[in-house]
Amino acid sequence: MAKRNKGRFAYDLQRVIHEKARLGILTSLATHADGLLFNDLKDLCDLTDGNLSRHLQVLKEAGFLEVWKRSRQTLCRMTPGGRERFEEYIAELERVVKDALHPKKRGKSRPAGGFAPA
Amino acid sequence: MAKRNKGRFAYDLQRVIHEKARLGILTSLATHADGLLFNDLKDLCDLTDGNLSRHLQVLKEAGFLEVWKRSRQTLCRMTPGGRERFEEYIAELERVVKDALHPKKRGKSRPAGGFAPA
Repeated sequence: MAKRNKGRFAYDLQRVIHEKARLGILTSLATHADGLLFNDLKDLCDLTDGNLSRHLQVLKEAGFLEVWKRSRQTLCRMTPGGRERFEEYIAELERVVKDALHPKKRGKSRPAGGFAPA
Repeated sequence: MAKRNKGRFAYDLQRVIHEKARLGILTSLATHADGLLFNDLKDLCDLTDGNLSRHLQVLKEAGFLEVWKRSRQTLCRMTPGGRERFEEYIAELERVVKDALHPKKRGKSRPAGGFAPA
């Protein structure tokens, strides 16, 4: 294994964003620059009240979101810093997709002959 | 919120693949059709022996991998079924990237005026 390949597939995917439900929430918000109401976000991401609240709290604490209240309505918007970090994450995700879709040409063939199932 | 948008951002990302380290392992193996030796995989994914072993076990039990032994060498290869599920996952990941990079035009503007920080 050439040294230059060290960590070639060690992707830098921030866990706070990578979690499946939060990835959906952030993508929704990236798509709606002027924000989304709690109930709309809940429908778009198909989450329960409790689950959505919990994930919003995590994202707010990590600086990704602003959460605004007006009477019984809650509005969520991405922060500029959150958007920047989300874009970095998406660029890394694109790298995963590109790697997966465009495998390198085969190197030295390594037949399984001689290997026994573990 | 129109009914047709229900679940629009609820991505179907299998947790067994989505975990960051396992995503790296599977992408490495998708890229090397004839398999990878344990030590090469460890370098490519920048994982410790213990971590790699643990993730390989999870992926093997979930049917993604074949693990072969020959004296002190271990060879890992993707199964045909594993490749199929991985490709489905990557297609969904492409959908995330596409959604994130091509936000819809703004709808009705929703100013934060009138909302108070939560």
